[in-house]
Amino acid sequence: MEDAAPQTGELVVAGGEHIPPLLSEIENRLMAEAVGYGAPLREHGEATIAAGGKRLRPLLLLLCAGPPQTDAQREALVRAGAAIELIHSATLVHDDVLDQADLRRGKPTVVATAGRGAAVATGDMLFARAFAVITHSGDPRSVAVLSDACSALARGELLQRADAWNVAIDRDRYLERCELKTASLFEAACAIGTIVSDEPQLDLASFGRLIGIAFQVLDDVLDISGPAERTGKQRGTDLLDGTVTLPMIIARENDPELAAIELETVNSAPAAEALCDSIAASGALDQARGFALELVAEAKRGLPPGLDSRRRAALELVADSVVARYS
Amino acid sequence: MEDAAPQTGELVVAGGEHIPPLLSEIENRLMAEAVGYGAPLREHGEATIAAGGKRLRPLLLLLCAGPPQTDAQREALVRAGAAIELIHSATLVHDDVLDQADLRRGKPTVVATAGRGAAVATGDMLFARAFAVITHSGDPRSVAVLSDACSALARGELLQRADAWNVAIDRDRYLERCELKTASLFEAACAIGTIVSDEPQLDLASFGRLIGIAFQVLDDVLDISGPAERTGKQRGTDLLDGTVTLPMIIARENDPELAAIELETVNSAPAAEALCDSIAASGALDQARGFALELVAEAKRGLPPGLDSRRRAALELVADSVVARYS
Repeated sequence: MEDAAPQTGELVVAGGEHIPPLLSEIENRLMAEAVGYGAPLREHGEATIAAGGKRLRPLLLLLCAGPPQTDAQREALVRAGAAIELIHSATLVHDDVLDQADLRRGKPTVVATAGRGAAVATGDMLFARAFAVITHSGDPRSVAVLSDACSALARGELLQRADAWNVAIDRDRYLERCELKTASLFEAACAIGTIVSDEPQLDLASFGRLIGIAFQVLDDVLDISGPAERTGKQRGTDLLDGTVTLPMIIARENDPELAAIELETVNSAPAAEALCDSIAASGALDQARGFALELVAEAKRGLPPGLDSRRRAALELVADSVVARYS
Repeated sequence: MEDAAPQTGELVVAGGEHIPPLLSEIENRLMAEAVGYGAPLREHGEATIAAGGKRLRPLLLLLCAGPPQTDAQREALVRAGAAIELIHSATLVHDDVLDQADLRRGKPTVVATAGRGAAVATGDMLFARAFAVITHSGDPRSVAVLSDACSALARGELLQRADAWNVAIDRDRYLERCELKTASLFEAACAIGTIVSDEPQLDLASFGRLIGIAFQVLDDVLDISGPAERTGKQRGTDLLDGTVTLPMIIARENDPELAAIELETVNSAPAAEALCDSIAASGALDQARGFALELVAEAKRGLPPGLDSRRRAALELVADSVVARYS
């Protein structure tokens, strides 16, 4: 799962002028956690955080919370934003161990530079720092939401491994995985936003859940559609990993020939590219994209009536950005 | 790092009659967390928890806290005990990934039965469940102590990987690693015990730290001394992994011939056995054991004066058990 490339600048402007300084404080806190805990985390942690990413999850948290009213709220937002991005970074470091990935965001991965042992430990440490940084902000509800989200992320990862190479998995199972491995952290970002702003009447969790699923669906579409020059990774990477996603599920429904393919036989980059073309030709990519757009529309419709117009507009923009991207 | 085999029965009796039902509640909670979060964690989590271990860390927590005075304290102890053992189990599952271990406590490891991906995710999930279970007990200080301990565990693991094959590491560096990768969780168990019992005047954290270091030193002695029939693992496993521990450090001080050995040349079980024999012949094992005994004596001397005689006696027994073991 790669980060979106939303029009971050536009989103930041829509969110209000309090957003840029908060994002920059979150960035500083992230880096402080990564480099402040002594060698050899310093090196691996710094490389991981410095490699960047769009910080979509912390941004979502800030947009859901609105402008902080007190210094304590401000501090809690910075800590929660850093914690959520630390969790996300930890899962990426661990994913790279499992996929033996050499590059992430164009930079060498921890597993590539320092080996599996260092990478597993670095991921564990980033997890631990996430809980440390959010716990010290003082609200146990935020910690509880974050720990439940982490359990879901790991469960999603386990389910995906269990489902590998199984072309018979259905939409429900696929959506369950998206909810667990991706949407749970989007949902947590939104929920923690309103915990910090102390607005229990604003339920933004399901907004986060829906755009999180849409985000994952679009990721899976981009894996098939490419182009590699824009996504930064080879087309059909999921197919080569044995990961069956929505485009493949729909393509099997659309075309009996595709339904007959066993993924184990797709074991080279050219074979994967050819299957990507067939999936696209079946209309499955447009249908999957359409499904993601429906989720986004549902997310926007479900924004609570009590939400002020500024936050509503910013969150609508975020929702749109999740599906209007090419990498 | 393997669990101790203390005279658990004796320790439980010394701790008081409230201990056995609490340990059994912790066991139930542990298993509930492991099996309650849906497939496929159920299987891997259950296997990990069911494989056992002496539950030394939860026992230490209970002994430090004394009998709970309220239902809330009781619940907090059960949750904290389960959390600490979940963290310990998570690190074991991840260690097995790094060491490609087939067996742990005589049972197949998660990585052996389900692969690296499932094992990394299972460890991540056990970490997350630990934070979930302790967070819901409501005291943010306990969560903070646990998350700091986890950071330390991961940092210790990273340091150990960074130090691999380096025979020139000194005692200070070795002790730093012991503090981080082992003593930090013992220390956390003791600290959380007095947080739950609401006795901030009782500082038991340094007791935990000292016996934790002693525990690790003894582990490292047993790796060299064997016998394999009692420890359950081949002698010299650390040497074959490139892990330089106190017996080797002392042996190098005692014997210039041993100081000249490069660990990379010790690359077979018979070579490791022979080096174990040389280390033992240098007197290093007795010296290392003596060092562990000193740590335990220091831990016992440092028990705070305000401690009641029952807890004092039980903690002294635990301290002794850490160094009086053969597996």
